[in-house]
Amino acid sequence: MTTLAELRVTIVGLGLMGGSLAMALRPHVASLVAVDLEPATVAHATDIVERATTNLAEGLASAHLVILATPARAILATLAELPRLRPDGCLVMDLGSTKLAVTEAMDRLPPAFAAIGGHPMCGKERAGLAAAEAGLFQERTFVLCRTARTSEVVERAALAIVAAIGSRPLFLGPQEHDEIVAVVSHLPYLVAALLVKRAAESAGDETNTWAVSASGFRDAARLAGSDPAVMLDILLTNRQPILDQLDGLERSAAAFRALLERDDEAALRAWLDARQQEYRAYRQALDNAEAPGQG
Amino acid sequence: MTTLAELRVTIVGLGLMGGSLAMALRPHVASLVAVDLEPATVAHATDIVERATTNLAEGLASAHLVILATPARAILATLAELPRLRPDGCLVMDLGSTKLAVTEAMDRLPPAFAAIGGHPMCGKERAGLAAAEAGLFQERTFVLCRTARTSEVVERAALAIVAAIGSRPLFLGPQEHDEIVAVVSHLPYLVAALLVKRAAESAGDETNTWAVSASGFRDAARLAGSDPAVMLDILLTNRQPILDQLDGLERSAAAFRALLERDDEAALRAWLDARQQEYRAYRQALDNAEAPGQG
Repeated sequence: MTTLAELRVTIVGLGLMGGSLAMALRPHVASLVAVDLEPATVAHATDIVERATTNLAEGLASAHLVILATPARAILATLAELPRLRPDGCLVMDLGSTKLAVTEAMDRLPPAFAAIGGHPMCGKERAGLAAAEAGLFQERTFVLCRTARTSEVVERAALAIVAAIGSRPLFLGPQEHDEIVAVVSHLPYLVAALLVKRAAESAGDETNTWAVSASGFRDAARLAGSDPAVMLDILLTNRQPILDQLDGLERSAAAFRALLERDDEAALRAWLDARQQEYRAYRQALDNAEAPGQG
Repeated sequence: MTTLAELRVTIVGLGLMGGSLAMALRPHVASLVAVDLEPATVAHATDIVERATTNLAEGLASAHLVILATPARAILATLAELPRLRPDGCLVMDLGSTKLAVTEAMDRLPPAFAAIGGHPMCGKERAGLAAAEAGLFQERTFVLCRTARTSEVVERAALAIVAAIGSRPLFLGPQEHDEIVAVVSHLPYLVAALLVKRAAESAGDETNTWAVSASGFRDAARLAGSDPAVMLDILLTNRQPILDQLDGLERSAAAFRALLERDDEAALRAWLDARQQEYRAYRQALDNAEAPGQG
């Protein structure tokens, strides 16, 4: 195949990401098939793909390009099955939230395959096909990770897809990607989850607690609503970078606590000023780039 | 005075809160004077109050009701000066972020004063008069804390003000208030500040870090932009409840870390599910109430 318009694409996993990609991609490709384990999801998919099936072998049979859009460990399981299901090989990309384990599995594919890792930096509080929308990727960063199996053909196909759905490509090494998302995505999830745990445990009279909570809490807590299935695979495939970020957070929290315990006004003031400066530098960087995506 | 329309009001502190209150309150009161230490702020206040001054004694001279809208420790300082500045007494309320220290200081006012604590549950990332707006308090919870000096007259005046600016009054004990805001406001600030510190420290190539960050990080980090002057007074006047919340957070983080370190998939899944349930219960409570305020 040479152009997107000639490409037969199969998307595996019709959740928020796979469903949104199907909607965004359909006008641009020759044909679009979806595979999902849930019969109910497959039944709802007829509007957005030409054919949907719960049968992985059947769904993959004639695809030029297979896009894996499940949680990370299911991507690893599918990659392990690909050589048996498609002995002739095909193009492969994924949308997984972590990249090192996935790209290492892609490295191990037989030479008949050409594969590239992907991670669109967008998302939503709600999961599943019902939350999917074609515009999800517009103006978002789409990380691409080359593997030992990345050919010019699969890289060009991935870039064409990124362009077609309105995202901006960013090539990163898988390790660098995983370390960055540990701090800008996984740690924020964890602190949001810890915040709702604190609030739930502390709520003497819950009615008063929630009446007093304002949009500061609402925004700080939002990521705690993330899909547990997706988060579990993230934790288990990005364990060390997340543990490293937790270490750093705990060290900083302990240092702050020491200042507060000894009422060190000058040091507390310097601490608060430094955080505001860091926040402003971040917002400035955002403003210099474009609007950020969700997730 | 009997009604709001007959009340001469002086607001001390024309920042985001005091400035917004001045805008919201002006149509409803007999006269409105503002006191601010900053000559530049006083110069900009002529549009929104009848008279603005940097001189506290002059600003308080003829007020029926004095509303203290500075950071918490400046409120304490003004309360200490009130008996000298207004030996005849007056009505007093405040908008401070913490309530125990303020209401204890109100308890100690001479009997010529009638005083009630207040805390509107709203805010903004940006501080200062430039960010003020009359609609800030609309549909927000406005906490009121009775003191040993709360008379029926000052309570009625406070309730009339809360109604005039479109807020919903909620009476809480000052200790209960401070414990609730420690978990729904001060701890969320601290974790946001710790997140931007982590991101700033971890940003190898900052351009990549910010390109990869999405709205999850943006929302999680937003409170880190809070005004350091306000936050410092919050920390120093709500020290123990904040330390208690930090304790709880650290304990929960350590328990989570143990699950991740030993790859305990079943326990991690249960942990993630529990956090999503807590988040959903919170959002349900919000939906059952009205839209939350900011801050």
